[in-house]
Amino acid sequence: MQSQPADLSSSLPQPYLLFLGDVTKAGYAKTAFGLRDWAPDRCIGEYALDGASVSADLTNMTPAQAMTQGARAMVIGVANPGGVIPAHWRDALIEALDAGLDVISGMHVRLADVPGLPEAAEQAGRRLIDVRVPPASIPVGTGRKRTGKRLLTVGTDCALGKKYTALALTRAFQRRELDTEFRATGQTGIMIAGGGMPMDAVIADFEAGAAEMLSPDAAAGHWDVIEGQGSLFHPAYAGVSLGLLHGSQPDVFVVCHEPGRTDMLGAPGYALPTIEDVIAATLLLGRRTNPAIRCGGISYDSSKLAPDAAERLMAADSERWNLPVADSIRGGPAFDRLVESCLA
Amino acid sequence: MQSQPADLSSSLPQPYLLFLGDVTKAGYAKTAFGLRDWAPDRCIGEYALDGASVSADLTNMTPAQAMTQGARAMVIGVANPGGVIPAHWRDALIEALDAGLDVISGMHVRLADVPGLPEAAEQAGRRLIDVRVPPASIPVGTGRKRTGKRLLTVGTDCALGKKYTALALTRAFQRRELDTEFRATGQTGIMIAGGGMPMDAVIADFEAGAAEMLSPDAAAGHWDVIEGQGSLFHPAYAGVSLGLLHGSQPDVFVVCHEPGRTDMLGAPGYALPTIEDVIAATLLLGRRTNPAIRCGGISYDSSKLAPDAAERLMAADSERWNLPVADSIRGGPAFDRLVESCLA
Repeated sequence: MQSQPADLSSSLPQPYLLFLGDVTKAGYAKTAFGLRDWAPDRCIGEYALDGASVSADLTNMTPAQAMTQGARAMVIGVANPGGVIPAHWRDALIEALDAGLDVISGMHVRLADVPGLPEAAEQAGRRLIDVRVPPASIPVGTGRKRTGKRLLTVGTDCALGKKYTALALTRAFQRRELDTEFRATGQTGIMIAGGGMPMDAVIADFEAGAAEMLSPDAAAGHWDVIEGQGSLFHPAYAGVSLGLLHGSQPDVFVVCHEPGRTDMLGAPGYALPTIEDVIAATLLLGRRTNPAIRCGGISYDSSKLAPDAAERLMAADSERWNLPVADSIRGGPAFDRLVESCLA
Repeated sequence: MQSQPADLSSSLPQPYLLFLGDVTKAGYAKTAFGLRDWAPDRCIGEYALDGASVSADLTNMTPAQAMTQGARAMVIGVANPGGVIPAHWRDALIEALDAGLDVISGMHVRLADVPGLPEAAEQAGRRLIDVRVPPASIPVGTGRKRTGKRLLTVGTDCALGKKYTALALTRAFQRRELDTEFRATGQTGIMIAGGGMPMDAVIADFEAGAAEMLSPDAAAGHWDVIEGQGSLFHPAYAGVSLGLLHGSQPDVFVVCHEPGRTDMLGAPGYALPTIEDVIAATLLLGRRTNPAIRCGGISYDSSKLAPDAAERLMAADSERWNLPVADSIRGGPAFDRLVESCLA
């Protein structure tokens, strides 16, 4: 967890100050957490507004303080539903520009569309950088089978480890000296990897085509490990998940889940699907573009459980489903079994 | 088939000259066919380039000739994969503007982005109208159950009668004096209905939210009959279909199919799914936002079969699946049974 990924971007100004706004749900601060965990040497502090109850456990500091410590940009570390920038964040963004920092955003709303921000950036001579902008020319999907091997992480819900699992599997594959690339599909993954495809910002007709573009033909032994998005069972985002599944045509998928989570994020009244439901739906729909698709195993975000309780649960569930069940962040022998199962 | 729908737009300049470009596949001329069939009094002719082998069976005429016969706009009557406007159509579009016609497009590409077109429109004092532009503020889906009743047409593939079936069912419901609205989800439907949601042009993250917006809370007895898009089994467009299914939360769906079609449109090597596969997948996924979803029956585009052969086939298939099977365009007693089954 402490080493830097192989393919970090050199095109974004760094290191970062992570802006947390007034976020009160940890699930919405996943951009900040992802950068802290996977690019720690590029995060020198965090900046939260009054009302925020979530922290990335970095030193809290103002943009001016961050600037004196070498920061080059403030990253919006929050991914709220709809990707909006609330009006009451504006002063903090302008404060960052005035302090001499560029501002980087992965929200749907463009920084240049926030009233007053373009003028403030111009006056300060700083840049507004939106990473959630898909390329201009995405083709319609064709479903053509591509060469090389692909793994996709899928989930029972949003924000429960699809990116972390893909990053951990990428590192594990690379440690086994397999030619492997992490394929980012969300703003945080793109900030970590330095490139990728913001799948949820693509026009719906081109969704599968965008996934095909993200993971092109490759050498027979090459692995693309593709970051999943949403869930086939999420009433708002299932279309994104299905377009990504079809376009990725994965050989192997890993189901990501947080034990104990009962309700879908942002969808009141919707219970989480079971692991069995997710495996069945992913096989049924995934076979359309890759008849050989199989489930490699299950990855738990067990961070809310004590280590021994997590291990007991994973051992029991592994026996129940006859599949490896591991915490990709905690690692250990169970994670090795998950890796071996994916590569089998 | 000859009467005008109830809710025609008065905001688009009409009547139309239908532009066919150099289209050679009937499936791609569905905008022209839809307008001819459902708004015949607004179509005074067609204009095809050399190389076109498809006709809407209207009088072929130049824009200047159409102008003298009262046309107000030329509509691009082609819906090709990707929604692009080829460079070799440009002269014909400029010819229409110079002749005094507005140009209406339902393509993904904006008319204003076609080189030379904005200048030609300004010089001629004519308008460029893009109907495939979603509204600015679409919320993320919530999955909240809405009041009123909803029917969605789904398909084994693209371009095999989902719009026609929805329009025919709308008229049949209205003839039974049920409060019913046709909800258009594609460019042709929007041109016919005068409003709607271009589902394939919406940013993927908002797909289900757009469908929720299209079909809001209504009186308990009100029916929204929603035009389906794509197919859950199309490798390029399934994400659009799933977002529309989830957001529409239909009480009833009707499966649309063209007997004899074996391959998916625009996806070489992909066989059509079976009717059973489509029913099973729609029930499995549709239950997520409406646990009471059911299949009302099957609608065939049997236009390639002789009437008696079509009737024999539909009777046999109806017995096989124990569901009404009808041709929504040809009508007849089988279609009445389909309507009754949807309303049951």
